[in-house]
Amino acid sequence: MAKLLTGKEVSADIAERLAPRIKRLAAAGVVPCLAIVRMGERPDDMSYERTATKRAAALGIEVRSFCLSADAPQAALEAVIDTVNADDAIHGCLMFRPLPPHIDERAVCDRLAPAKDIDGIGSASLAGVFADTGEGFPPATAQACLETLDFYGIPVAGKRVVVLGRSLVIGRPVAMMLLARHATVTLAHSRTEDAAAHTREADIVVCATGQPRAFGPAFFAPGQTVLDVGINFDEAGELCGDVDFDAVEPVLGSEGAITPVPRGLGGVTTSVTMAHVVQVAERTLEGGR
Amino acid sequence: MAKLLTGKEVSADIAERLAPRIKRLAAAGVVPCLAIVRMGERPDDMSYERTATKRAAALGIEVRSFCLSADAPQAALEAVIDTVNADDAIHGCLMFRPLPPHIDERAVCDRLAPAKDIDGIGSASLAGVFADTGEGFPPATAQACLETLDFYGIPVAGKRVVVLGRSLVIGRPVAMMLLARHATVTLAHSRTEDAAAHTREADIVVCATGQPRAFGPAFFAPGQTVLDVGINFDEAGELCGDVDFDAVEPVLGSEGAITPVPRGLGGVTTSVTMAHVVQVAERTLEGGR
Repeated sequence: MAKLLTGKEVSADIAERLAPRIKRLAAAGVVPCLAIVRMGERPDDMSYERTATKRAAALGIEVRSFCLSADAPQAALEAVIDTVNADDAIHGCLMFRPLPPHIDERAVCDRLAPAKDIDGIGSASLAGVFADTGEGFPPATAQACLETLDFYGIPVAGKRVVVLGRSLVIGRPVAMMLLARHATVTLAHSRTEDAAAHTREADIVVCATGQPRAFGPAFFAPGQTVLDVGINFDEAGELCGDVDFDAVEPVLGSEGAITPVPRGLGGVTTSVTMAHVVQVAERTLEGGR
Repeated sequence: MAKLLTGKEVSADIAERLAPRIKRLAAAGVVPCLAIVRMGERPDDMSYERTATKRAAALGIEVRSFCLSADAPQAALEAVIDTVNADDAIHGCLMFRPLPPHIDERAVCDRLAPAKDIDGIGSASLAGVFADTGEGFPPATAQACLETLDFYGIPVAGKRVVVLGRSLVIGRPVAMMLLARHATVTLAHSRTEDAAAHTREADIVVCATGQPRAFGPAFFAPGQTVLDVGINFDEAGELCGDVDFDAVEPVLGSEGAITPVPRGLGGVTTSVTMAHVVQVAERTLEGGR
């Protein structure tokens, strides 16, 4: 049986470190506040929003939801972003993506005030991740991968990592973060020939393509660590990852490790999001507001 | 004998496409102008500056050199950048790096006006390369790699590329540009275990570590394309690349290809720099100045 890298323990650890900080903020009259911006009602967005709202409440973080219909115009979404930017009581903003195809996503992402960009969607944060300057915030999902590896004591430096998927939400940022931690990183994707030949040679495989159970046993080898970023719903409406868990887990063997879906990286991502909100709230305090 | 991917032909092609554009600018009273900012007198910087100045003159592009001593303070360098930013007659700025260790390099790079950042050193350009938005300019050396592959008809999509070196000047940007062109890209570096095992499996290897003749025959295989970005001086003071050319070229075989040093990518980088300057000059014209 491969080791299960469940998210609960990682989240508990993050929450434990956040508690005294949120207490200090409360004592100064500051309640950390997260704005969630959503267009339409995609089930994965809705599911994540419910989890985030529950988690925030448990930690003492406020959530304000801004919901638009899937066909709302660009101007309506921009007006929401402007509201978020202007409201000093809001510390961070999480906007679900991908946005509908009629929206200029890059423009909206860059409209968000960099100081509130706790999910690393704006150009300033992207440059920070790419250049490893520590400016801005990395995307929460990408950081969740690192937090999970660190919590479970899985080394990264000098290891071979293959990242499947090259999105800006997760593939490219996590690749840069792993590179900064001295991994040898390969970015594979839909146009990669024989991706399995790459992944089988890796120490760590990050699956981030958003295709339900796309990666079966042929992609993996004993002793590997598999991070499954996918949050998909299969044809039966069941939540599943990018990895065909039941078929892959036995291949990894007792030296291997894998994040399950559900109960894996999703919850850690939520925790990282909350940690970023708290960080921004602390900065506003330091700023003397 | 491997095919020699000499830069001269690539540069001639770029120059040919630039000539009518520079003519049109001249007719409108605009002489494209490049500022070169240099600290100290490193031989590779000096060599590049001489080449660039000569090339610019041949094309009808003006060059203004700003030289500081290697121990000039941060404020002096920032004053130069401010001068460059403020002067409407200067269209682009090339600043040699790495800067001396007492300089906050990131701060200086971000001080340069993004519109004049023709070598892709500022955060806006970095985000553009990382996110593939087309904003800003990619580093000229990284683009020179792509121009050379394109000129010689070497396909990139679906190919395995290994980039040796992860600097922001070349390794990371060229990796992102190749990824955007659908290559499967591995970033290897000083902490990579058995880098040769990676490079031997690649279709294209980009060598960008700045170590003279660091990569010998064990790193390569028949049929590969090798891009040698290195511009180093060996112990005898001779200009050489990161690749041990004489030993590696025979390994690549008649199906292989390699950029020589000198006479390789260096000249193409200069041409790309000039093309970026012309592009900015055209923008100022469109802007109605």
